[in-house]
Amino acid sequence: MVKDNKEKTMLEIRIPATSANLGPGFDCLGFAIKLYNSFIIEEISTGIETVINDKVSGKEIDLSLDDNLFYHGMKKVYDLTNNNLDGIKLTEIISIPLARGLGSSATAVVAGLLAANIILDYPFTEEQLIDIAVEMEGHPDNVLPALKGGFVINVITEEGLVYKKIELDQNLNIVLVIPDFKLKTGDVRKVLPEKLGFKDAIFNLSRTALLTSSLQDNNLGKLKIAMEDKLHQDYRAKLIPGFHEVIASAYQQGALGVALSGAGPSMLAIVNDNAEQIGEKMVASFSNHNIKSEYIVTKPDNKGVIIRK
Amino acid sequence: MVKDNKEKTMLEIRIPATSANLGPGFDCLGFAIKLYNSFIIEEISTGIETVINDKVSGKEIDLSLDDNLFYHGMKKVYDLTNNNLDGIKLTEIISIPLARGLGSSATAVVAGLLAANIILDYPFTEEQLIDIAVEMEGHPDNVLPALKGGFVINVITEEGLVYKKIELDQNLNIVLVIPDFKLKTGDVRKVLPEKLGFKDAIFNLSRTALLTSSLQDNNLGKLKIAMEDKLHQDYRAKLIPGFHEVIASAYQQGALGVALSGAGPSMLAIVNDNAEQIGEKMVASFSNHNIKSEYIVTKPDNKGVIIRK
Repeated sequence: MVKDNKEKTMLEIRIPATSANLGPGFDCLGFAIKLYNSFIIEEISTGIETVINDKVSGKEIDLSLDDNLFYHGMKKVYDLTNNNLDGIKLTEIISIPLARGLGSSATAVVAGLLAANIILDYPFTEEQLIDIAVEMEGHPDNVLPALKGGFVINVITEEGLVYKKIELDQNLNIVLVIPDFKLKTGDVRKVLPEKLGFKDAIFNLSRTALLTSSLQDNNLGKLKIAMEDKLHQDYRAKLIPGFHEVIASAYQQGALGVALSGAGPSMLAIVNDNAEQIGEKMVASFSNHNIKSEYIVTKPDNKGVIIRK
Repeated sequence: MVKDNKEKTMLEIRIPATSANLGPGFDCLGFAIKLYNSFIIEEISTGIETVINDKVSGKEIDLSLDDNLFYHGMKKVYDLTNNNLDGIKLTEIISIPLARGLGSSATAVVAGLLAANIILDYPFTEEQLIDIAVEMEGHPDNVLPALKGGFVINVITEEGLVYKKIELDQNLNIVLVIPDFKLKTGDVRKVLPEKLGFKDAIFNLSRTALLTSSLQDNNLGKLKIAMEDKLHQDYRAKLIPGFHEVIASAYQQGALGVALSGAGPSMLAIVNDNAEQIGEKMVASFSNHNIKSEYIVTKPDNKGVIIRK
């Protein structure tokens, strides 16, 4: 068998990072960021081969199939359609740091589902795939912006997910500050209380409306208030040393809005200008609490998934 | 003293009805409706005279000063500025049915505050008056749309109220269905639980975002989902016979979105066309539960208060 035949590229899928749980929008608001993971599917004669190239550490990651979410995504579609997944090589090029609240896991799930659906000639509609992805992820606010780009409102209904995408202004800069420790979403959910008071719910409802409106008409003068949250950030702040100081330092430098990204520990600032200084101050604030971190200045992504066949 | 001198009109204030607690937006979202109360202040030689002309019943209402919210609004500003309220006649022309969840009380409070502030040559800024009105009302979602018109997002912060007004499309029709019984907001609040689960909070958060976005870009295809609520409507439905049937009948006739107005018992439907039929069906549904009701077809108000000096 010649090499050409052995490793034929079938698909390449590029998917953006996402910040879910945006400000007050717990489990429903997220947006996509110009920072991408890529997934390559090649045809091989037999078996499943995987390569994970972690651009963040510069190393290859050794991961069992059981822990490989890209593989899980593909296998889900193969299993649901009674097909046998075999004879492929999966290569993942990871630029979105793992377990930092930036939706890296969601990119793998979505890429796997999309890839399998294409290879199997579309057994599922996009709507069906979205519902499968949301079920696998447990919440929709990384899945949809990763897939569609932009700022996405996600509503879970009895008939499946309903969403609305809003494109974000490309003059905005996003400062991501990524601490050098990991938080798994599952662990993080354990710190949340079971019930909340009406007052806290109304606090978030009002700000969720203001946040949505502000991002939709790009009128960001009230974004600082719109990003406030009583549902999850205070509980998660206990797991992230320096949390409040990082937020304060970003606002001092002129950030428009600052929030935890997803379940953390990454933090994000939406800014007009002064992005580098804001990033430096946020990193310095983490440093005051003995947390090493890095910052990235990027922009919102409005495109979502890009597939090359 | 000649009559001209005895009854000199100082001010006339017209203020729209409002639907607060809109859909999922408990205590934070409301909008103004083209249905108005008018308040006239005339100068007289001494004392306080009040006339309440109820256009709804066609009768005069006899109300003590203690129960007169228009008077209370005026007196609040007079008291706060150490002025003595005397020598005025207050005439209220009421077209917004009382205690039906249409913000009739809020119009009286707002009119009183505004009138006194004008007569006393503006001791308070508009921001200050808003904060006084919100404190008197206990919640902001009738006050702001009554004052400013439009759909208003209301956010209570430690530094006072922050709001954003969004103008509504004038092609929309509003069907108000007003049952022939009263619910006082205070009584209605007693039926609400003290705490709620995260799932219900997220249900409302996601729909609040969708509702805000939908009204802002007048893209109302998902309004039915956006109007759903888990925070208060189910509890209040128990006080309103026929509640669920009224909603279902409006949707059957093509309403875009249906909700309780404020704390009820009035219901509202946002519709493109078929408004009369929708109103008739909603009234018929109430009738099936032995509740007499009337409907009004009107439009959103984008102007708010109009003052004639």
